[in-house]
Amino acid sequence: MNKISKILVANRGEIALRVMRSAREMGIRTLAVFSEADRDMPFVRYADEAVCIGPAPSAQSYLRADKIIEVAKQFGADAIHPGYGFLSENASFSKAVTDAGLIFIGPSAYSIEIMGSKIGAKQAALKFNVPMVPGTDTPLQSYEEAKTVAEKVGYPILIKASAGGGGKGMRVVNGTDELEEQMRLAKSEALSAFSNDDVFIEKYVASPKHIEIQLMGDQHGNYVYLFERECSIQRRHQKLIEEAPSSCLTKDVRKAMGECAVDVARACKYYGAGTVEFLVDDDLNFYFLEMNTRLQVEHCVTEMISGIDLVKEQIRVARGEKLSFSQDDLQIHGHAIELRVCAEDPMDNFLPDTGTLNLYVRPQGAGVRVDDGYEQGMAIPIFYDPMIAKLVVWGRDRNEAIDRMCRAVDEYKIQGIQTTLAFGKWAVRQPAFVEGKFDTGFIGKYFKPEYLVQETEAEQEVAAALGSVLWDEGKKDMQQAAGQDGKVSKWKLQRN
Amino acid sequence: MNKISKILVANRGEIALRVMRSAREMGIRTLAVFSEADRDMPFVRYADEAVCIGPAPSAQSYLRADKIIEVAKQFGADAIHPGYGFLSENASFSKAVTDAGLIFIGPSAYSIEIMGSKIGAKQAALKFNVPMVPGTDTPLQSYEEAKTVAEKVGYPILIKASAGGGGKGMRVVNGTDELEEQMRLAKSEALSAFSNDDVFIEKYVASPKHIEIQLMGDQHGNYVYLFERECSIQRRHQKLIEEAPSSCLTKDVRKAMGECAVDVARACKYYGAGTVEFLVDDDLNFYFLEMNTRLQVEHCVTEMISGIDLVKEQIRVARGEKLSFSQDDLQIHGHAIELRVCAEDPMDNFLPDTGTLNLYVRPQGAGVRVDDGYEQGMAIPIFYDPMIAKLVVWGRDRNEAIDRMCRAVDEYKIQGIQTTLAFGKWAVRQPAFVEGKFDTGFIGKYFKPEYLVQETEAEQEVAAALGSVLWDEGKKDMQQAAGQDGKVSKWKLQRN
Repeated sequence: MNKISKILVANRGEIALRVMRSAREMGIRTLAVFSEADRDMPFVRYADEAVCIGPAPSAQSYLRADKIIEVAKQFGADAIHPGYGFLSENASFSKAVTDAGLIFIGPSAYSIEIMGSKIGAKQAALKFNVPMVPGTDTPLQSYEEAKTVAEKVGYPILIKASAGGGGKGMRVVNGTDELEEQMRLAKSEALSAFSNDDVFIEKYVASPKHIEIQLMGDQHGNYVYLFERECSIQRRHQKLIEEAPSSCLTKDVRKAMGECAVDVARACKYYGAGTVEFLVDDDLNFYFLEMNTRLQVEHCVTEMISGIDLVKEQIRVARGEKLSFSQDDLQIHGHAIELRVCAEDPMDNFLPDTGTLNLYVRPQGAGVRVDDGYEQGMAIPIFYDPMIAKLVVWGRDRNEAIDRMCRAVDEYKIQGIQTTLAFGKWAVRQPAFVEGKFDTGFIGKYFKPEYLVQETEAEQEVAAALGSVLWDEGKKDMQQAAGQDGKVSKWKLQRN
Repeated sequence: MNKISKILVANRGEIALRVMRSAREMGIRTLAVFSEADRDMPFVRYADEAVCIGPAPSAQSYLRADKIIEVAKQFGADAIHPGYGFLSENASFSKAVTDAGLIFIGPSAYSIEIMGSKIGAKQAALKFNVPMVPGTDTPLQSYEEAKTVAEKVGYPILIKASAGGGGKGMRVVNGTDELEEQMRLAKSEALSAFSNDDVFIEKYVASPKHIEIQLMGDQHGNYVYLFERECSIQRRHQKLIEEAPSSCLTKDVRKAMGECAVDVARACKYYGAGTVEFLVDDDLNFYFLEMNTRLQVEHCVTEMISGIDLVKEQIRVARGEKLSFSQDDLQIHGHAIELRVCAEDPMDNFLPDTGTLNLYVRPQGAGVRVDDGYEQGMAIPIFYDPMIAKLVVWGRDRNEAIDRMCRAVDEYKIQGIQTTLAFGKWAVRQPAFVEGKFDTGFIGKYFKPEYLVQETEAEQEVAAALGSVLWDEGKKDMQQAAGQDGKVSKWKLQRN
């Protein structure tokens, strides 16, 4: 068993804080590394020690593997937690950390390497008969090969970058006439995003739901799955709203998917926290997409329904301990929904917005968790991901979680920057969402920016009509909210 | 079934906000009433409408039953939620609300009246063979009667006010020589606190634990118990730390106490949320103390382990619905601990402190709930209870809840006023607390003000020795935390 007494958190923002909170609860000291742009961030102050490692661009700070390992050694950290993004799925980093005599709180370089290549991952998973979307499992060598494969699996197809993620290097092709052009574009995107232009073909699944299984393994060959997360509400192929459990899985499908995910983990000798992503069609057929060899942004919904602190368990596994729970210990308790509160403008195609959090008041109360990395008065730096916070709610059932999400969005006050908050409230109230009848095309199919405008105006009219009165017994007088007491009135009009 | 479309919340501070949050999640509008001293409080702004009902002293505002009912009618509220304290256990208020054609979100006047008298409550409970602490069950008529009874049950005994609560009018008597004087003092205290000098005698239980059962009943005769809360950490006979479940009950005792509590509720035809309090001795014998016919301050720990929103269920019951869950639906999920964050000085016998929240930063992260009624910059009014907030944490097990409480206390930044925060962290780390071997005498037995001083100083020394370094790569320079960056440094020294 390896002792961990100080963890370097090689990340920033909300995930750095989130990791440090669990470390602190375990009595482990924390060491933050930060870029010059992040000097005043809460995660820097939260850490027991903090070291500036370079200028704002990630390549000069958060991606400087050598510098980070040097700092860990210099300041006596015995383990490194990579968070998500940055170096979290970098096999060489995992190896370099271990080679330096430190503990990497994540999987081995071997596991990361296999699952880091879509094709390598498929090949490993196939040995365990994990179901795949029909398509190629080796990089396409030519347009002619692509044409043959595409005709075999049948249009529409997807061309995907082998090293890809986040929708980059991914193209839908509806027929042979589009194939050559789309393949060229996919390869070019892949090259610029991943320095690797390998692409392959998959059957395009209509009305697909994106459902993923959270799993954990230890270094002794034990595995458990912590049920699923449904992540179908996406914009630009990136998740915006996630929930657990899914509103559509049956108990049998859940179990089959969970066992499949464990097989994928076994196939790459995985340990730590990992996620196996599946596409699920209308008939609940599921197909392996990829494995994410890190903690995911949306891990909180799993924590809320399982009661397991995933970061603490990652740390235990990294110390060489056995998993602290078995499959039989786990059960789904209630329902959780997460909304990513991003500095984006839903009225303008979710383009990133910049600005300062002039007003920033978090929601509170039962069943609400806000994981964020900012405070009132701070600007959202342009160098990094535009996510301000994760608003996570728990309810006894899905309906209560939806009601709570709406209440929490109403309480969440952000001024000075456009966010996805109002969109989130709109989305969870849509009949398609409430009934669980939605897929990854939800936003394209249902959302129009004017819906948010209309709702805001309608609500303001209601507020005006109802009067939001303040009665002052002392003065025997009744005032409209816009009257006497400026402070109260302003709030009333904002909220209603 | 009665529709409720607008609720008047006849209370203030955290409980007013807490009730409004549940109402809002149910799509019900809210109407706040507030005193002149509370004009700028968050609960006033949170409400859909807010009405000032009088000057700061409660007798001129929050206790003005007539005025509150008038406001409810005038502003179209169809129901009144009394919160806790103030009018919540006032039978005439329950009756007046109902007589005015409004719904009282709480029990009937009949139930409140029976349970409002300690003696009436005992008599009702005895019909169901609920175990009682040996003693009288009618008011003592004379010193001679007291002497006879005291000798029969055996010293030490307690003299308690019949109309009492919160330790007022309660006296421990160790022998006959003290009896006359203590009885006189108890009667005099009872008279001034409750306008009623009836007192009775109970056997004094040594090493008593205060354990209470949360129950709910509907208007159709259905009852459930939502397990227990252990509330033994008290100062001045008032609760400071509560947890659920208790660390000492067995499954069988839990069931027996739960069924007993339901019997007490049945004995007074109770509906809504109520709590039956028991004294529990070392051998897990339990004795009925009293029934609280309202939502309790500490109801949140029950919400956290059961997943039930008690306020929503109160509202459903008040509408005439059946309970939305049965006994079999309930199970204990994890462990929750609540610390009352009060404006009190633990270094000075927990005397109320006054001041302004110059800095007020709430803890965040997994498993933390803060129910409060204030914001940074606000003063704690002297007119009301000195509780600033309830810090409630949940953990997979009791140890995790304790670790999380310590982490949350560290994150909670309050400056400008003395609070019970540091005491709370000290308390949950004591071996007696960790091992569950404590009773209502915990503070008197273990706590000395200097423990807090010592810990603070020791921590500061550790911080100074470790240096809390900030390394700036850009300047190739290492600084003590007290150096260059004032903002970061200040935090480090405070937290460490």
